[in-house]
Amino acid sequence: MSAGLTYRMGRIFGRDGRAMVLPVDHGLMLGRVPGLEDPRALVQIAADAGCDGLLMSLGLARATAETFAGRGTPARLLTLDTLLREDEQDAGTGSAVVSVRQAAVLGADAVKLLMAWDVPAAEQAAATRRIAAVVEEAARWEIPVMVEPTTLRAPRNEQTVELEVHAARIAMELGADIIKMAYPGSASIMAALRAELGLPIVILGGPRLSTSADLVRLVDEAMAAGASGIVIGRQVWQREPRERLAVMKALVEVVHGRLPADDAIEGLLPVA
Amino acid sequence: MSAGLTYRMGRIFGRDGRAMVLPVDHGLMLGRVPGLEDPRALVQIAADAGCDGLLMSLGLARATAETFAGRGTPARLLTLDTLLREDEQDAGTGSAVVSVRQAAVLGADAVKLLMAWDVPAAEQAAATRRIAAVVEEAARWEIPVMVEPTTLRAPRNEQTVELEVHAARIAMELGADIIKMAYPGSASIMAALRAELGLPIVILGGPRLSTSADLVRLVDEAMAAGASGIVIGRQVWQREPRERLAVMKALVEVVHGRLPADDAIEGLLPVA
Amino acid sequence: MSAGLTYRMGRIFGRDGRAMVLPVDHGLMLGRVPGLEDPRALVQIAADAGCDGLLMSLGLARATAETFAGRGTPARLLTLDTLLREDEQDAGTGSAVVSVRQAAVLGADAVKLLMAWDVPAAEQAAATRRIAAVVEEAARWEIPVMVEPTTLRAPRNEQTVELEVHAARIAMELGADIIKMAYPGSASIMAALRAELGLPIVILGGPRLSTSADLVRLVDEAMAAGASGIVIGRQVWQREPRERLAVMKALVEVVHGRLPADDAIEGLLPVA
Amino acid sequence: MSAGLTYRMGRIFGRDGRAMVLPVDHGLMLGRVPGLEDPRALVQIAADAGCDGLLMSLGLARATAETFAGRGTPARLLTLDTLLREDEQDAGTGSAVVSVRQAAVLGADAVKLLMAWDVPAAEQAAATRRIAAVVEEAARWEIPVMVEPTTLRAPRNEQTVELEVHAARIAMELGADIIKMAYPGSASIMAALRAELGLPIVILGGPRLSTSADLVRLVDEAMAAGASGIVIGRQVWQREPRERLAVMKALVEVVHGRLPADDAIEGLLPVA
Amino acid sequence: MSAGLTYRMGRIFGRDGRAMVLPVDHGLMLGRVPGLEDPRALVQIAADAGCDGLLMSLGLARATAETFAGRGTPARLLTLDTLLREDEQDAGTGSAVVSVRQAAVLGADAVKLLMAWDVPAAEQAAATRRIAAVVEEAARWEIPVMVEPTTLRAPRNEQTVELEVHAARIAMELGADIIKMAYPGSASIMAALRAELGLPIVILGGPRLSTSADLVRLVDEAMAAGASGIVIGRQVWQREPRERLAVMKALVEVVHGRLPADDAIEGLLPVA
Repeated sequence: MSAGLTYRMGRIFGRDGRAMVLPVDHGLMLGRVPGLEDPRALVQIAADAGCDGLLMSLGLARATAETFAGRGTPARLLTLDTLLREDEQDAGTGSAVVSVRQAAVLGADAVKLLMAWDVPAAEQAAATRRIAAVVEEAARWEIPVMVEPTTLRAPRNEQTVELEVHAARIAMELGADIIKMAYPGSASIMAALRAELGLPIVILGGPRLSTSADLVRLVDEAMAAGASGIVIGRQVWQREPRERLAVMKALVEVVHGRLPADDAIEGLLPVA
Repeated sequence: MSAGLTYRMGRIFGRDGRAMVLPVDHGLMLGRVPGLEDPRALVQIAADAGCDGLLMSLGLARATAETFAGRGTPARLLTLDTLLREDEQDAGTGSAVVSVRQAAVLGADAVKLLMAWDVPAAEQAAATRRIAAVVEEAARWEIPVMVEPTTLRAPRNEQTVELEVHAARIAMELGADIIKMAYPGSASIMAALRAELGLPIVILGGPRLSTSADLVRLVDEAMAAGASGIVIGRQVWQREPRERLAVMKALVEVVHGRLPADDAIEGLLPVA
Repeated sequence: MSAGLTYRMGRIFGRDGRAMVLPVDHGLMLGRVPGLEDPRALVQIAADAGCDGLLMSLGLARATAETFAGRGTPARLLTLDTLLREDEQDAGTGSAVVSVRQAAVLGADAVKLLMAWDVPAAEQAAATRRIAAVVEEAARWEIPVMVEPTTLRAPRNEQTVELEVHAARIAMELGADIIKMAYPGSASIMAALRAELGLPIVILGGPRLSTSADLVRLVDEAMAAGASGIVIGRQVWQREPRERLAVMKALVEVVHGRLPADDAIEGLLPVA
Repeated sequence: MSAGLTYRMGRIFGRDGRAMVLPVDHGLMLGRVPGLEDPRALVQIAADAGCDGLLMSLGLARATAETFAGRGTPARLLTLDTLLREDEQDAGTGSAVVSVRQAAVLGADAVKLLMAWDVPAAEQAAATRRIAAVVEEAARWEIPVMVEPTTLRAPRNEQTVELEVHAARIAMELGADIIKMAYPGSASIMAALRAELGLPIVILGGPRLSTSADLVRLVDEAMAAGASGIVIGRQVWQREPRERLAVMKALVEVVHGRLPADDAIEGLLPVA
Repeated sequence: MSAGLTYRMGRIFGRDGRAMVLPVDHGLMLGRVPGLEDPRALVQIAADAGCDGLLMSLGLARATAETFAGRGTPARLLTLDTLLREDEQDAGTGSAVVSVRQAAVLGADAVKLLMAWDVPAAEQAAATRRIAAVVEEAARWEIPVMVEPTTLRAPRNEQTVELEVHAARIAMELGADIIKMAYPGSASIMAALRAELGLPIVILGGPRLSTSADLVRLVDEAMAAGASGIVIGRQVWQREPRERLAVMKALVEVVHGRLPADDAIEGLLPVA
């Protein structure tokens, strides 16, 4: 691994190879999102709570430079693309909108791209080319590339999981350094995929709101099954402030294996 | 032939002009494929078994650099493109996703591109432009270009063969250095094509699983008819581990003409 | 201030605007230097001792990437140039040997250049051009530029100080972000210069070995007079291991104003 | 270490981290040299004798591409520069004459540059800039850079050794991957330097002809003291053909620690 | 005139084609200069006093961006070069150190270069090439170029004036947009030169300190003879604060012809 890649992967995953990353890049694709009404404040809260990284778009990353202007602050992962859709059933049009060079200028530690796979072949091909171009460019900057194999259409089912796991393999072959994906639902699939890819896999949360306790349990299971961390946003910050903070801190502890899930759950505030 | 091309063609085809190349690049186009659940281990097995080369995508090539970090290790051929299809009847959308420059940086010995030909003229034209652009770029790096004329739709028949042979001639005219294609079915067609193209032709295997013995016999026939080697994957590694290894070794011997096909077959394990 | 500059200046100077930087880049200009026989180990010791930054050349920065691969590790400042001299009286030939782009790839937080000023006008002009070119390039990468106005010929005297202060002003006009220079000898000169330049000034140590206590006192005086930190190497690491570590830690405390100089000195080991 | 660097360093130094490299690049700087009257034949002999690598200039590397066109053939290291001198006392004018890109095109495994250090500061500065520029370019191609710190003027003495060791340290700081230098004369200096630099050091031979037995003994001592191999030419090929071959083979065995020096010497032909 | 040039020339010279520009760029060439101890404060004072423009180097222009962040603030002219001399008799070594691109990035309204002419032909040639290169580059950015024909050696005399007028004509031929020069001493020479060049000429002050009244009279004479404005620094700001401000305001009025010189002088503070 090159010196730059070693440095940046280490900034994200630390000595234990694990990371609790909070994504707050939703505005780029979704515009106004409940829970992200004050994104700059939320970024500061996450930094203070001990999150290992923040996933942000360019605008928010620039606006919060001050929060990260120190050592011991979280890593920053920069979202490079967006996907614009007619409606929930539309495959959408994906577009890379930020260059790897801009990530290097900002001092971001990784770049991140979507890989929606329940879409027509032409859109798959376009996503593949976008990812491949970023992989080549990122190699010049020695910046890791996170790819997110995903499906767009609800509800999730066995085919969804199969498609995402399938796309994750393609992402590895394209040269991704980190895979961000939904928990495939069982520890055995997770462990097998981790072994197959040979890359760190971080688990996303998605829009379905569960209780804080369920969320902590899911993360605990994923970590036990070989995940290298999480990139869970809405399920964290779409809660009222005190619970939001408690969940952040619980997830940091559970991801790093410093607290059993049950103890972490006990420490959460009662959901009124 | 330029110094770089001489060197790299020699690394693939050796003194006898023959090569047993194991393709393990399927994940890029097909995602998860049975037999490729642990691609890094398989690459090491192939290297130890004496394969002359591995055909890989970028991600796997990077992940296995250590295996090739020596002299006497197999050559590496890098897959530059992918083809994404709606279904088995779709012509698909081909895309070059890796640059020749990346092959030069990795130290790969050749680059490889698809040339699907039972597709609409517009897609044929796009494939032609992709191949031509890589041929021009590869000349600057003195890296050989392998082109794979192929048909996408099953079942195969006489028209299929004719179309592939026809496309092979176009590939030669475009500047390909090596042709990878299905065995055209008869020694006479094979010999005539070899004479016409004046290029090494390597035989692919495809998805149809035959017995190990049949596979060895087919390869033997192809070599006798003028093939320069094989690039057969699924028919090799979609077998249980001991047979997989035995087939690899048998094919290496047969390709290089060091063992009669019958003796090689006899050395294979009994298929339980 | 641009987002990248804010981030990187904050990584060096932290919340209190102060930094204890250990320079270990001497090998680039001086070759073997007593105390730097095991530069990789020394870098690790400095990181563990809580130094805010390390000033290194490219080779050492690459070789120690692992040490910095985390959050909360020291900042890295990259030396871009060297100065080669016939003898102690020669003005020398300065050369930029590392590009700002390489600093960006490594993830370094600043770049550093010499500005020797007791040299002929032609060499001054060459240094000026080198600095100006790096300032322009660094602006594109939003990486801060540290410039070191200095005199080459011993002994130091009033003219020396005047010349360095004069050069510091020119460095500011050229667009330097940080000034590294010898303590100008009096608190009043130091304070006036700080006000005039409007830039952080970090104090260097030079080759003259004083006692650890004297060193701590000098640093304390400089900080009180407006310095933003120190970049002192030989006076720190040209001591036996236990004293070296004690001095590092004492200087970190004094620079950040967390310990009165007298208490810090008391905590030093007795010099046998 | 990047994938390309891993691959190429492995091709030179193999699994045991040791390499017997035969330099035959002398013609670029010295023109006609006794023993190199038929350089193409000599390259073939070296390849057949099991040398791990050949150090060549561009012309010879192109002319001998056929010899290396296979797997299991020696690595090729490409000399990028030359030094032209008025006479033996002249500091000379060094020039880079081959680009790293050409090494990538040829498929060479490393590039090599001189670093003459008993020269005026201006020439030192020029050499420093040449090396630094190649280091930056080579990083883009993931090709290792060998630097040769050396003194030009005979006779060798303690100052010579000190100057070369000093320059070796500077080469490390500039980002060299491999150091080629004269054996510093004692096992303790050698071992200390190896530890200080953290880089493989390969020992050169120079023009002084000793007996084959003495040469083997020197190499044995150097390897025991921590050298990673040798790059010895004239002392090998300025012997009559049978002895030349015997010395090559003996050195390969001794470098790789497969034969005690005494046994290797016994196997040499009697010097008539 | 191109749209960009029209805009920027208008920002400097306004509706009446006249400009009172205060130069504060001396630090770049001279280091510390009496009167410029707090350059940022002086820039603010000049802006508040109604100066039409400030001539600054890059570092100061960056540091004072806030002062200019509005409409109705003074124009900024950026000094691109410096001249380093052994002593007062040395012809010096001129160097362009800031690019036109940086002026465009800052939003500066003009760039400025020296043209010392009592120097050897080689240095004249170098200055000519520097100016010509900037003229070409500036045309791409549509930024006006101010050139300052000057003599370096004191005392001034008829030959000095002749040489500067001569150089001014060469500057016009090179493509300068504005000429900055010493008042040629007589209204008739001034008027003739203005007519010959067809370019705005702005008058510099130089190091010789006269009384404020004499300065105002000189400026009045120059304006009457066809000057388009002044670029006078030391004669303005090397006075005590209250007089400095009074002189600034008087010169603004006189340059724009809004107050007869005698009235302006009357309004000056008595020189204690």
